[in-house]
Amino acid sequence: MLNVDETIQSVKGFRVVGVHAGMKKNGNPDLALIVSDRDCVTAGIFTKNEAKAAPILVSQEHLTKNPSSIRAVAINTTSANAMTGRVGIENSRTMARFVAQQANIQNEQVLVMSTGVIGTHLPMTLIEKGIEMAYPLLGNDWHSTARAIMTTDTRPKTASIKVQTIEGEYTIAGISKGAGMIAPNMATMLSVIVTDAKLELAQANVALHFAANKSFNRIVVDGDTSTNDCVFLMTNGASGVYLKTQADILQFYQALTSVAQQLAQAIVRDGEGATKFITLHVTGATDEGSAYKVANTIATSPLVKTAFFGNDANWGRIIAAAGRAGVPFNPDTTQLWISPGEELFEDDKGLLLFQNGMPTTYSEAEATRIFSEESVYVSLDLGLGTSESMVWTCDLSDQYVAINGDYRS
Amino acid sequence: MLNVDETIQSVKGFRVVGVHAGMKKNGNPDLALIVSDRDCVTAGIFTKNEAKAAPILVSQEHLTKNPSSIRAVAINTTSANAMTGRVGIENSRTMARFVAQQANIQNEQVLVMSTGVIGTHLPMTLIEKGIEMAYPLLGNDWHSTARAIMTTDTRPKTASIKVQTIEGEYTIAGISKGAGMIAPNMATMLSVIVTDAKLELAQANVALHFAANKSFNRIVVDGDTSTNDCVFLMTNGASGVYLKTQADILQFYQALTSVAQQLAQAIVRDGEGATKFITLHVTGATDEGSAYKVANTIATSPLVKTAFFGNDANWGRIIAAAGRAGVPFNPDTTQLWISPGEELFEDDKGLLLFQNGMPTTYSEAEATRIFSEESVYVSLDLGLGTSESMVWTCDLSDQYVAINGDYRS
Repeated sequence: MLNVDETIQSVKGFRVVGVHAGMKKNGNPDLALIVSDRDCVTAGIFTKNEAKAAPILVSQEHLTKNPSSIRAVAINTTSANAMTGRVGIENSRTMARFVAQQANIQNEQVLVMSTGVIGTHLPMTLIEKGIEMAYPLLGNDWHSTARAIMTTDTRPKTASIKVQTIEGEYTIAGISKGAGMIAPNMATMLSVIVTDAKLELAQANVALHFAANKSFNRIVVDGDTSTNDCVFLMTNGASGVYLKTQADILQFYQALTSVAQQLAQAIVRDGEGATKFITLHVTGATDEGSAYKVANTIATSPLVKTAFFGNDANWGRIIAAAGRAGVPFNPDTTQLWISPGEELFEDDKGLLLFQNGMPTTYSEAEATRIFSEESVYVSLDLGLGTSESMVWTCDLSDQYVAINGDYRS
Repeated sequence: MLNVDETIQSVKGFRVVGVHAGMKKNGNPDLALIVSDRDCVTAGIFTKNEAKAAPILVSQEHLTKNPSSIRAVAINTTSANAMTGRVGIENSRTMARFVAQQANIQNEQVLVMSTGVIGTHLPMTLIEKGIEMAYPLLGNDWHSTARAIMTTDTRPKTASIKVQTIEGEYTIAGISKGAGMIAPNMATMLSVIVTDAKLELAQANVALHFAANKSFNRIVVDGDTSTNDCVFLMTNGASGVYLKTQADILQFYQALTSVAQQLAQAIVRDGEGATKFITLHVTGATDEGSAYKVANTIATSPLVKTAFFGNDANWGRIIAAAGRAGVPFNPDTTQLWISPGEELFEDDKGLLLFQNGMPTTYSEAEATRIFSEESVYVSLDLGLGTSESMVWTCDLSDQYVAINGDYRS
């Protein structure tokens, strides 16, 4: 992973702002704008949930029409504008129009995102006034912008990187929000990443999917996403750096992936009530899909997650989850290790807990010590093939229930 | 549902016992025996988890050999004897042998069940002494027997029914244990049902699968079961009542289903930390499998379950879960109602919350009042077909995390 900075560098041609438009009762920023001074070649990844929110449908429509001339993204919190019928669609269109009027561009050059309670209509008066107030304040305050898209998040999530090329320097920067992490797919995940590098549309699309597969898709399950999940990559070329050679493009992919990983991991770290960062690395699978299914079944097992919270090295729950993942699994060929930290040190997988269908004679005290760490790396070798997958997750604490039992009040 | 009694009537030819063999630290009963004085035609349903516990493998082997001459079931708690390799298999076989020696029958006429921590070996000395102590105490104390198979269960689960036929009377009785209910598939579910009616093997197998589909499978997901899940139906014919006519057999199916439903619902009611009993009735699906998937996705959604715990009528989470079930779903044809209680009164589905892709103008106070009830009936009509499914579940409270973060200590 490249060296990513949480303090966002300015990105040429982009201005941002986060304001309080009166939606969050506590007075915090609740409306964000990201605006480019020129057309952006833009890629988007949208939720696969069949119950798509109005802003998803409207943004899909706008992006399909103007993939090479998007100019702005507007994001509101408190209302997801999901399951709100034709009125909801009209409201998302109107929200885009408010921005277009300020920026003197076409409505369809604006993308919209919403996050908050499902089934409530957008407070259009507040949104109109908020956009009017916000537009003149556009600048370089990425921190406030990231704060303005938070729901149950406890901290803003930002990342940026500067990349040197022969032609010059460009910047990639982004913000994200997430939070509900009992299953990583249960909260709305939003992210906007921008760059002043110049890309072709096909390059932007491939780059975003490549990066998402190694970041957001490690914490968000294929198909199992919220009504509002959405990630955008906006590229405006303002740096003058045009990605021409294969080396340039590869470098961009890597840099974008690093930014996306930082933004995705920040969501896991800030999981509702989370106290631990857990890396699940499944190897030896017959195919990558199977490896992913095993990793994901473990990551979403409440029994596994509560064991981590309780510092209880109850590894049997990990094996049991793997066994019910619905893919080839044989306890007799399976090996399980745990290690403290977020990465392995010199490929040392740590303490071997299980092999040959039964527990090793490991030290219970040592296992408990590793489970008690703030970050734990779990290696599971299925012993059936050569494919692997990795998923990041967090533990499940009593705080999760407290937060989600009472979200709307 | 027929009238089922929680106080178990004696079942001819069966004797039971639950004793403290020294496995549970608090001195509670931890070892159960169920013995018939003659051969039993026996049906079994075993976990589909690929990581099958030793008692599952051994019981499958014994039942395959002797489906018409099973004589006893032995059940221990505290150790699941799962992921314990060849030693675990040997231990389960030995546990069966201890019972066979006492009863003077073949080892393969004994079935075994285990529940508790995965990856620990059976304490064979305690089990041997426990069986020696228990066998002379065999009698009619079903309550203690049900207590002896509890893990995190807070109360024993029993059910029985007497059935009158022209030929005479027979009895069906059973016990069950469960508990971990964040997803209904996450804890080990065990149940043994016995009857003194006389059945053919094919009848017993069909009857058990028929009843399980309307009971245990409403709370346990196809394929997604624990390492140790298992249900047995033992029929010894001691009542002299032989099920001959179609009417007799149908009556038996219904009676068995009622007993199984009582035992299954008792597991939901006793879900770890549960405060509410929730019925999810999905109709209007294109096929039954889709209806079930939707009901199950809602039932296992932590966001839905925590909303119920918080008495928060956040119905958008129900729609969002339905949308990500991976089956046909269209918000515009979907309708959602909630009603207090466990059954509908004269098909009145209660308060309509959502239709035509948007919320109705329902009273928020009324919705909150219904969500605050101890039991809530949720009706979701997908508007796409004529198939339906029903699932029972419970809410998710902070107590669940407290229980599962600290299970082994």
